[in-house]
Amino acid sequence: MGRALLVSAVVTALLLGSALFPVISVNADEGMWLLNDPPRKHLKQKYHFDLTNEWLERAQKASVRFNNGGSGSFVSADGLIVTNHHIGADCLQKLSSKDKNYLHDGYYASTRDKELHCPDLELNVLQSIEDVTARVNEAVKPDLTPAKAFAARRAVLAAIEKESLDKTKLRSDVVTLYQGGKYHLYRYKKYTDVRIVFAPEQAIAFFGGDTDNFEYPRFNLDICFFRAYEDGKPAHPAHFLRWSPTGPREGDLVFVTGHPGSTNRLDTLAKLLHRRDKTLPYWLNRLRSQEALLTQFAGRGPEQARMSQKDLHRVANSRKAVSGQYQGLLDPAIIRRKTDEELSLLAAVKVKGDAAKHKALQDALAHIEEAEKTFAAFEREYDLLERGDAFDSELFHIARHLVRMAAELPKPNAERLREYRESALESLKFKLFSPAPIHPELEKARLANSLTFLAENLGGSHPRVVKIMGEQSPSARAAELIDGCKLADPAERRRIAAGGAKAIEDSTDPIIRLVRLVDEDARALRKRHDDEVEEVERQANAQIARSRFEVLGTAIAPDATFTLRLAFGVVKGYRVDGLDLPFATTFGGAFERADKQAHREPFVLPKRWLDAKDKLNLNTPFNFVSTADTIGGNSGSPVLNREGELVGINFDRNRHGLVRNFVYTDEQARHIAVHSRGVLAALQTLYDAKALVKELTTN
Amino acid sequence: MGRALLVSAVVTALLLGSALFPVISVNADEGMWLLNDPPRKHLKQKYHFDLTNEWLERAQKASVRFNNGGSGSFVSADGLIVTNHHIGADCLQKLSSKDKNYLHDGYYASTRDKELHCPDLELNVLQSIEDVTARVNEAVKPDLTPAKAFAARRAVLAAIEKESLDKTKLRSDVVTLYQGGKYHLYRYKKYTDVRIVFAPEQAIAFFGGDTDNFEYPRFNLDICFFRAYEDGKPAHPAHFLRWSPTGPREGDLVFVTGHPGSTNRLDTLAKLLHRRDKTLPYWLNRLRSQEALLTQFAGRGPEQARMSQKDLHRVANSRKAVSGQYQGLLDPAIIRRKTDEELSLLAAVKVKGDAAKHKALQDALAHIEEAEKTFAAFEREYDLLERGDAFDSELFHIARHLVRMAAELPKPNAERLREYRESALESLKFKLFSPAPIHPELEKARLANSLTFLAENLGGSHPRVVKIMGEQSPSARAAELIDGCKLADPAERRRIAAGGAKAIEDSTDPIIRLVRLVDEDARALRKRHDDEVEEVERQANAQIARSRFEVLGTAIAPDATFTLRLAFGVVKGYRVDGLDLPFATTFGGAFERADKQAHREPFVLPKRWLDAKDKLNLNTPFNFVSTADTIGGNSGSPVLNREGELVGINFDRNRHGLVRNFVYTDEQARHIAVHSRGVLAALQTLYDAKALVKELTTN
Repeated sequence: MGRALLVSAVVTALLLGSALFPVISVNADEGMWLLNDPPRKHLKQKYHFDLTNEWLERAQKASVRFNNGGSGSFVSADGLIVTNHHIGADCLQKLSSKDKNYLHDGYYASTRDKELHCPDLELNVLQSIEDVTARVNEAVKPDLTPAKAFAARRAVLAAIEKESLDKTKLRSDVVTLYQGGKYHLYRYKKYTDVRIVFAPEQAIAFFGGDTDNFEYPRFNLDICFFRAYEDGKPAHPAHFLRWSPTGPREGDLVFVTGHPGSTNRLDTLAKLLHRRDKTLPYWLNRLRSQEALLTQFAGRGPEQARMSQKDLHRVANSRKAVSGQYQGLLDPAIIRRKTDEELSLLAAVKVKGDAAKHKALQDALAHIEEAEKTFAAFEREYDLLERGDAFDSELFHIARHLVRMAAELPKPNAERLREYRESALESLKFKLFSPAPIHPELEKARLANSLTFLAENLGGSHPRVVKIMGEQSPSARAAELIDGCKLADPAERRRIAAGGAKAIEDSTDPIIRLVRLVDEDARALRKRHDDEVEEVERQANAQIARSRFEVLGTAIAPDATFTLRLAFGVVKGYRVDGLDLPFATTFGGAFERADKQAHREPFVLPKRWLDAKDKLNLNTPFNFVSTADTIGGNSGSPVLNREGELVGINFDRNRHGLVRNFVYTDEQARHIAVHSRGVLAALQTLYDAKALVKELTTN
Repeated sequence: MGRALLVSAVVTALLLGSALFPVISVNADEGMWLLNDPPRKHLKQKYHFDLTNEWLERAQKASVRFNNGGSGSFVSADGLIVTNHHIGADCLQKLSSKDKNYLHDGYYASTRDKELHCPDLELNVLQSIEDVTARVNEAVKPDLTPAKAFAARRAVLAAIEKESLDKTKLRSDVVTLYQGGKYHLYRYKKYTDVRIVFAPEQAIAFFGGDTDNFEYPRFNLDICFFRAYEDGKPAHPAHFLRWSPTGPREGDLVFVTGHPGSTNRLDTLAKLLHRRDKTLPYWLNRLRSQEALLTQFAGRGPEQARMSQKDLHRVANSRKAVSGQYQGLLDPAIIRRKTDEELSLLAAVKVKGDAAKHKALQDALAHIEEAEKTFAAFEREYDLLERGDAFDSELFHIARHLVRMAAELPKPNAERLREYRESALESLKFKLFSPAPIHPELEKARLANSLTFLAENLGGSHPRVVKIMGEQSPSARAAELIDGCKLADPAERRRIAAGGAKAIEDSTDPIIRLVRLVDEDARALRKRHDDEVEEVERQANAQIARSRFEVLGTAIAPDATFTLRLAFGVVKGYRVDGLDLPFATTFGGAFERADKQAHREPFVLPKRWLDAKDKLNLNTPFNFVSTADTIGGNSGSPVLNREGELVGINFDRNRHGLVRNFVYTDEQARHIAVHSRGVLAALQTLYDAKALVKELTTN
């Protein structure tokens, strides 16, 4: 259907008073809802469930954000936290060495003195939300140039956060919602003394590996227990979730509270097409390049496999997720739906009769289309130099922070690059001075590969490439950079950070020199992006959001922003390729899957499982699915029942859910969780984790 | 150094009478030499070796080309042939099924009646070479437009080949040498009844897998024995190579006769830079995309792993080879060397004083630079549509042959697309009607992935993409195409081929329809490439070749063309990263490597090897290296000693040899071969292959 025809169909429907905008109505159980604007009415009407303030407060304050990209929840009065193994993997990897591979072998601290301290893990628990939209908008006058508007906005955000931090001592972040439609101030209690209590073997946590990732049926004990400490003692959180010994049943209403990372459901069609044709093909190429490199690196030997294990999983997981996104945008049905949504909004605004508002919406859409075109001209260089795709090295990113901190910290808070604003410094330094090991061999391989990728994208004779390579091949250049760098030592980082601009100027560290060599170019690209793309789009999106609010109110949740959200859905299976998949899998299914895969990697069950097969009740539920709306970042989120008990730990979504970046459907798309009953059974029967089981069951 | 400065340095050197053009002199043992223009003088001077006509004729007529991309040699009077396991892999895979996996498990026919017939393997043995340069050049008048010149050249080549085929009944191919500098007519004896005699387990043939591919030290029994049959009886070749029971020793002069596929050493700098900046980054992206797809496909289950095994190896091998090429072109030292070569040639021609010739060379270089720019504008579409990168499916390529044969065969021989010339039809049909199995599940996955790759490269809204996808997602479109296609059945292919244009028009086969849908576009792209790039460059290269011949004669071998060449070198180890690598490895080394890799895949030795470790002499030489000049296509080539005995079977080159596409060095670059003594020991001690050993040792 052509655009014009579609518009008139929609407008006709409107004029005839037919059901209002089916294409922009809230779809079934869609939504990653704000905790301060939850879907009480929908829950009441459809599920006869009263979302009480008490229920909500407990869920909120028992939910935990893992700042390395995941979610979790308190499950005891003594600060015990459950999340996914693949969220704990970062810490497990950092604590491992040639002789102890906790990531691969798992770990259990049978007593508290054996709990292992994570070197750089920060957890956040949301305490309050405050709407600061009016203050932000007030500070950004409508007649400013985009560059001045960007600066004014940056200044007011930094000020709000700094004031809040000073007043409350809580981590304070202003979150941009609805792509610029609203601004909310989130305040968090922070935990930085976090210790590992229990992790299973990776072979069962990630049973099926990349092959079964984003698939269902699944058989994964993808859990990891941590404990938060305060002043050297187990923390006593305000709230925690009771562990349901029975878990969910088919048809149950369940909730997921966690931190979905990012979605693009409210992006305009122009932005989605840009994403499809410019951004994602490039991402796919980059991810495949990294995956090929890491796979080869792991092949060098068992120790290299250990070093690169977590990176390889991260990259392969992204490759699969991004492929799914890309396939979604190549599906004409999805593009049609997004087109319909946009045209319906235009038609709905038009039908209200305010020509100025309709014009403003049209202009906003056009501005975004323009901004995307502008971006296309320098996006690759921006990605490579400023986002750092050309420098896939931890040492590079450490060096860049040191160089930029030296330049930014002397400036007033309002004028700094956003990541160096006063309120963010503590968390930044906590990561920057981490004693976690850095492996030069891996750094060298990754950096050589990404310098190669730089040349692949810009061409070997491009001035920026020539400048960065310094008349050397990528591998020679990477070797020179990593071999000469001293920043693997946190003490050296502290020394340079303390020395400020002088220390940077005096430094002969080759990576610091490389950062300085590219920093002017990188900053210029960033400024161009900030002023010509981000600010223009933010203003346009604010306009679109206003139009949407007028038509629909906040009946559509904002896109995900790695902040706490509430989702809900029903525990149920689905039909695919003529096959009915059950709502839950069992322990027995894991053994069957291993048989069917001829016990090849990654379908090799841990010895503990194979040996104890006879002791297990093979009908014990293992993993289950529900229709609740989740995305990456929700990993480790608690799944709650009506009573607010923990019935599962979310760890994945199926392949039908990979298009959730753009559209939610509940026909086949599901999130996947570990069943609370399965966890208890495994801990008891296989891991002999008495103290842990006791703590979970005697609350 | 700038161009101008460099030129004057070179010219000064010339005028002062210093050593003539060091940068274009023959480097040490460089060269894949024509059998009709062998380096007798160099061998005599440097190695005191008389390359007799007898030696050369035996080597030539005992050497075998595997038309699926490799080399081999006769090693008995009864038509026994040795090549690599990875060259035999194509046939081993095609003969395998769910129940019998010859590729993985190996095979031994202890008696002749058990030898397994390959469905579509054609072998060629070179009988004679004739220089037809004068006739080709005579037919292409200098005043023709490029399009007319291209047609005239195509016509004369087809005529020469057809005449030769009619006269001699031998397969007759005109080979373009020196990028258009010379044309030689090659005549081959063909074998199409070829049977498998012996293959080891893939685990030892490809021990170390992708990790150790293009590396050294190596421990690979990368061999496979075939037997050629004529009229249902073992063939009796005119010549065969005696198997050396001792193999080579350190310092030995050795020869390699085989079929190097392609090199780019005589390409102009402009062409190399185009290759670096336009062609190879795209190839890398494509190969990585295919590798990721095939890896995931293999993960689906043991049977899927079996189906995709050979494709996965092919793609991973290419990815590594192309990466090595690309790294070579990113090495400033190599670009400097190629620049020097070009400038030295210009300077050498200039110093001879004929201004017209100097101008002609300058123009030729400029024309190639122009043609590469022209190509850049449509290269991606050419690759995707005409080369078929968008259609990674065997069925697509079968359908395309059927569609094009129907259009081309009614035309006069002189006017057909080159692959349908009269003299090529028999070999083409032999492949086209092969009964080898085609797996729909794999076809679907590959096609969906390549349709996705098409969109990645051109954008989802590109008219060609929209046309090909037909309003469907890539996976839906691929499923529709493969599910509806009947061409997996060779009888259906024969039926359509026999039916000509009418059968094509009437066909409702969705893949035939797809081919027809894109064929006009694809042919137009091809014509543009033929006329505006290939013909222009061929004429320019002919001019460059004339200049080079005047300065150096044929002291530089032509680039590889998958035709028989003679290379030579010395058996010797090398030093890398401060470590001296020996000229040969041993059986014992294989066990040590497996231990060091903790017996992880692909370092799991076959049970047969582990069980019989005590029976083996662990000091037996296994693989060895020499400086002889080889490249892909040389896989399976015999390595000969001064006496013309087979002392090894070439199977790889090390990573330092990956830049051999552009430059040869003998400092670290080596080809790698299986040691003839090691082969005998393995066959005797591990495989109990008595008849085979007897045939090899009693000649």
